[in-house]
Amino acid sequence: MKKNKEPCYYSDYLKLDKLLGAQQPVSGDYGPEAHDEMLFIVVHQAYELWFKQMLHELRSVHTLFRADLLPDEKLMTVVHRLQRVVAIQELLNQQIKVLETMTPQDFLEFRDYLVPASGFQSIQFKELEISLGVRRDTRIAFDQASFYNRINAKDRAYLEALEQEPDLFSCVDAWLARMPFLETKDFSFWRHYQDAIEQQLRSDEAIITGNELLGEEERVAELTALQSTRENFAALFDADKYREMQEAGRVRLSQRAMQAALFIYLYREEPVFNLPWQVLSSLVDIDEQITLWRFRHVMMVQRMLGSKIGTGGSSGHDYLRRTTEKNRIFADFMNLATYLLPKSTLPPLPEPVSAALRRRAD
Amino acid sequence: MKKNKEPCYYSDYLKLDKLLGAQQPVSGDYGPEAHDEMLFIVVHQAYELWFKQMLHELRSVHTLFRADLLPDEKLMTVVHRLQRVVAIQELLNQQIKVLETMTPQDFLEFRDYLVPASGFQSIQFKELEISLGVRRDTRIAFDQASFYNRINAKDRAYLEALEQEPDLFSCVDAWLARMPFLETKDFSFWRHYQDAIEQQLRSDEAIITGNELLGEEERVAELTALQSTRENFAALFDADKYREMQEAGRVRLSQRAMQAALFIYLYREEPVFNLPWQVLSSLVDIDEQITLWRFRHVMMVQRMLGSKIGTGGSSGHDYLRRTTEKNRIFADFMNLATYLLPKSTLPPLPEPVSAALRRRAD
Amino acid sequence: MKKNKEPCYYSDYLKLDKLLGAQQPVSGDYGPEAHDEMLFIVVHQAYELWFKQMLHELRSVHTLFRADLLPDEKLMTVVHRLQRVVAIQELLNQQIKVLETMTPQDFLEFRDYLVPASGFQSIQFKELEISLGVRRDTRIAFDQASFYNRINAKDRAYLEALEQEPDLFSCVDAWLARMPFLETKDFSFWRHYQDAIEQQLRSDEAIITGNELLGEEERVAELTALQSTRENFAALFDADKYREMQEAGRVRLSQRAMQAALFIYLYREEPVFNLPWQVLSSLVDIDEQITLWRFRHVMMVQRMLGSKIGTGGSSGHDYLRRTTEKNRIFADFMNLATYLLPKSTLPPLPEPVSAALRRRAD
Amino acid sequence: MKKNKEPCYYSDYLKLDKLLGAQQPVSGDYGPEAHDEMLFIVVHQAYELWFKQMLHELRSVHTLFRADLLPDEKLMTVVHRLQRVVAIQELLNQQIKVLETMTPQDFLEFRDYLVPASGFQSIQFKELEISLGVRRDTRIAFDQASFYNRINAKDRAYLEALEQEPDLFSCVDAWLARMPFLETKDFSFWRHYQDAIEQQLRSDEAIITGNELLGEEERVAELTALQSTRENFAALFDADKYREMQEAGRVRLSQRAMQAALFIYLYREEPVFNLPWQVLSSLVDIDEQITLWRFRHVMMVQRMLGSKIGTGGSSGHDYLRRTTEKNRIFADFMNLATYLLPKSTLPPLPEPVSAALRRRAD
Repeated sequence: MKKNKEPCYYSDYLKLDKLLGAQQPVSGDYGPEAHDEMLFIVVHQAYELWFKQMLHELRSVHTLFRADLLPDEKLMTVVHRLQRVVAIQELLNQQIKVLETMTPQDFLEFRDYLVPASGFQSIQFKELEISLGVRRDTRIAFDQASFYNRINAKDRAYLEALEQEPDLFSCVDAWLARMPFLETKDFSFWRHYQDAIEQQLRSDEAIITGNELLGEEERVAELTALQSTRENFAALFDADKYREMQEAGRVRLSQRAMQAALFIYLYREEPVFNLPWQVLSSLVDIDEQITLWRFRHVMMVQRMLGSKIGTGGSSGHDYLRRTTEKNRIFADFMNLATYLLPKSTLPPLPEPVSAALRRRAD
Repeated sequence: MKKNKEPCYYSDYLKLDKLLGAQQPVSGDYGPEAHDEMLFIVVHQAYELWFKQMLHELRSVHTLFRADLLPDEKLMTVVHRLQRVVAIQELLNQQIKVLETMTPQDFLEFRDYLVPASGFQSIQFKELEISLGVRRDTRIAFDQASFYNRINAKDRAYLEALEQEPDLFSCVDAWLARMPFLETKDFSFWRHYQDAIEQQLRSDEAIITGNELLGEEERVAELTALQSTRENFAALFDADKYREMQEAGRVRLSQRAMQAALFIYLYREEPVFNLPWQVLSSLVDIDEQITLWRFRHVMMVQRMLGSKIGTGGSSGHDYLRRTTEKNRIFADFMNLATYLLPKSTLPPLPEPVSAALRRRAD
Repeated sequence: MKKNKEPCYYSDYLKLDKLLGAQQPVSGDYGPEAHDEMLFIVVHQAYELWFKQMLHELRSVHTLFRADLLPDEKLMTVVHRLQRVVAIQELLNQQIKVLETMTPQDFLEFRDYLVPASGFQSIQFKELEISLGVRRDTRIAFDQASFYNRINAKDRAYLEALEQEPDLFSCVDAWLARMPFLETKDFSFWRHYQDAIEQQLRSDEAIITGNELLGEEERVAELTALQSTRENFAALFDADKYREMQEAGRVRLSQRAMQAALFIYLYREEPVFNLPWQVLSSLVDIDEQITLWRFRHVMMVQRMLGSKIGTGGSSGHDYLRRTTEKNRIFADFMNLATYLLPKSTLPPLPEPVSAALRRRAD
Repeated sequence: MKKNKEPCYYSDYLKLDKLLGAQQPVSGDYGPEAHDEMLFIVVHQAYELWFKQMLHELRSVHTLFRADLLPDEKLMTVVHRLQRVVAIQELLNQQIKVLETMTPQDFLEFRDYLVPASGFQSIQFKELEISLGVRRDTRIAFDQASFYNRINAKDRAYLEALEQEPDLFSCVDAWLARMPFLETKDFSFWRHYQDAIEQQLRSDEAIITGNELLGEEERVAELTALQSTRENFAALFDADKYREMQEAGRVRLSQRAMQAALFIYLYREEPVFNLPWQVLSSLVDIDEQITLWRFRHVMMVQRMLGSKIGTGGSSGHDYLRRTTEKNRIFADFMNLATYLLPKSTLPPLPEPVSAALRRRAD
């Protein structure tokens, strides 16, 4: 460890020799250099730099979640770092506009030299997906087959080891599941809540039935959807049915975690639940931003290549489009909105919780 | 017509009395006013103001396209106004972030009072879709059934009349189809071009076959896709096959317009084709932005309501999601990238075109 | 109050008749209608709609601040609504790009008809400034003279009455000044803190003196600035000197409020100070966004008019530029960064505060 | 030159070993690593990557401008690449939001280790300024003194050599000055134009004089400004007066270039002037974006440091603020709006120009 501070020079500190020496267009090896290849390289390098930063934040968040205790100061740090990930994602979404200044024809000037490299080989992006909680078995079929077969053995081994580690999804699930306020014996709370939801569903049913502007087909579709919501809701409080929902892939969180999350969403305006709510909300933001990025990326690829194959030897955009749906990680939290109630109809808090709140407010 | 200029006062000019008197939350009619209802109203009113502006631009573009002649000055105006529409769309996409500051629970405080109104009833939005060229028969089934049944008779009549007018898609199709440079008898150009594309497709085939990183299943899928591209391409030059593609909904432009568009994309760096290319490119931008808006809108609705029904009596997000794919209007231009070639392999321009270019460059 | 819910129709609810009937270009009264006048009107009406929403939020925040108690739930509401104001401001900044699609020449087609109306006559914008805390005596000279003389008597009276009401700045000042933890008799805290700051200033002094890359002139300038920081800092703890700073316009907050704010910034990671810190931070965000808007607005006006006069009869951009500096409201919070310390060198919290924290954490 | 294409692997192509090995926080050398130092490094490295890309584009634009001929295809390339620079600048402006997720206190954890490095030492940023046309003698005094004294001898020599090369400003000036249509002997055009402007100025004068809402002081100020505009305008057509304006720093373009630019702005809707107008407009965009970046950067620094010195040993924000005004490069084009006329009052084009246009349109 250094004792005395050494003077620092900007370009040494940022290793600019290395950094700015790492752009080596290959088109020049085969003929005149394609002007736009530099842009292509810089755009992808900028992505990789930001991926590194996002992984830096996610790793620190993992560590915090895996500690025995997660006091409020630490939760603030979690929220702060997750929100930083979101800020980076917003930047990456904007960055697509820069790549879009390259025309399809300009890309063709050097596309052939890059074969068979492709963005599917970005280890850091796969690492991001794994760290967040995209799992091999929930990927779309194409992706299950191809996730590993386009990369070399070393990279494959690295990622396979990573898949054995706990991901952010499971950290959050465990944290939610051990929330102390769930240890209540006050069954009346959940009963009260179920009544309120049932009343709301009945009111929704009346709206659908009474809506003269709806066609018959629509009405039937809506009533079917409502029935499904009713069943999903009932399953939240029935361990067997919940397990069935999990197995059918309709829900991913554990039952206890789901109940805790629901509690947090319902009472987020109670100061004690505000930080946990910010955590869940940040996770939904991250999920939304990554989905948006996939979607914009699909459109950009389609505009660049039409249905032509990419450098990796496949026409990526169909594949990519399907991932916008399937690779959602924190959709369970997003779906919680289904079970919210207006504040005015919220049941009173169960006694152990409100007692804890009173103690804190002293 | 006024002769003398009258002095103008800011609030009179902008009719602020009317404008700022048009926000009347209904929650206050039934109980204490819900604070966030004002936001809900203002967000939707801002949308409607911008829709009016977009329609103003689109109408003027329609008029320009329907004139007998569309000289370069007019084309510049077309591009300028289409790009303004894009700038407004980017703003509307950003505007979603403002609505997202309303929490699901805050929305529940007044949702019930709005039944059965819903965004599906925005006449101006439907008008925008129709003006651009979304057609009843290409809408998804749900939308075909419900496009008209949620609005009143007067609004319905207005829109049905509008559907009889030429839309932007058909204006552009007609403009492309009458491009004079297509009147060439120089068949060698298209032959040369087809050879170049065939060579490219063979090279892509070799890439797929030789890519050891691809799994067997992927390889078969890619080769099938390539064969389909080959057939699509062949159909561009065969009137019967092209008609089949049109009938199957795989292409919407007329064959002549498609050939003209292809020409423009290939030679966009020739000054004479640059403005037409900017027109096509702006149309793709508009399509991309509207698609992005639908997609973000879906995510926002899902976050707000989960799978709960909206005020219009239906859970909109499944429906909305499907429209992100189906309601594309100018996808044909986006798909043109499939048939582009690197500049170095472009065939020489057919004689009548290059002669015209020489004359212009004098 | 209504008992039974009445069915709601989208266009009635949003008063679209009024809203979409409020765009009446005047150029058509004098000759052919200028196409871009519609854009000009819609842009300004969109601004006014959003100003109304911002005022709606600010008024509710004022009310919350003026209550006797401001418990944590209410503070969360304050933060939430201030952050919504920021989200709207970001949108308004983006909106400038839409107006920039109008070329200077297109504007000239109808500019003369608008004389002498101008954006200076927006009552809601002036109301926003007054509500936030821009005061007549801190405005630049030009603005002091002209703030009221371009508007009619009714509008003038309305704004003058508003200036008598407490603004957001004074609400925040009062709230900070009554923070209970300032009631400490533990002088050792401030002494400890002053020592730490003094040490930091000495270290900065050594850095300046030892920096061989600095020219002599720069070195002198930096040391002078450092001395000024030292004096400002000393004044924080000396009522007389503080009053002098206030009178010289170098600081606006009351001394007690300044000390409280400093405390909050230093210990923002303590859960109890996190919400107050979010309040202050949101105020700085609002200030930054309004400043950025003024700045972008200046550039847009300059690009549109050069040094030509605007419709209000003055060349606004010089004036506007000066307001970017002078009309800052919450600069005191921004300047607090000067007196921060790394967490590792923070003095221990004074006993009454840490005792209160322990009680809360039970 | 390679004959056979070699297979390409994503991480080799992008030199990810080098790129992702270049982040080495120094805080870890002196104690526990500061979590946020990684963000600080990555943000600055991302800036440097994009600076490299911007320089790549600017160098290619320089080369195009310095060729003997600049036909329309090449001008399209110029516009395309300048617009790409603008897209990158918009991204860099957004990137500030990512750095703002670092709190002032988090920065203090590692600030001292970076002394005396600072952003003033970014050679690529200085190179960008020089390439665009920021000149030593127009920099503010502080900057003239310190531009070179904070960097090492090698970097200094590199930049000093660069200052001898033609910059973008002078390339554009030369290109404008040699525009052929200025070779007209048709003095009636300029006379006609001067009359139209004089009429407009008289109308503006009447507006100011007749505006009862203006205070006396304002009226005098406006009339003085108008007189100054009148003199500036007269100087455009008087070589001696123009030279005085140049020497006083009120204008930078050569007189011939200024006249050409004026012509282009007036007749930008003529197809032949549209591309030149897009060039000028892109330069103004670049200037606006760099100014906006400086301004946002100032606010960010102030929020991070207050009036504390930065790592380079100076409190940068005062300095930076002044550069937002002084380091404008293409302000002359922005100011051209002063001399525009509505299309309806434009004088007819001089004969040699309209003849050339007729020939082209055949």
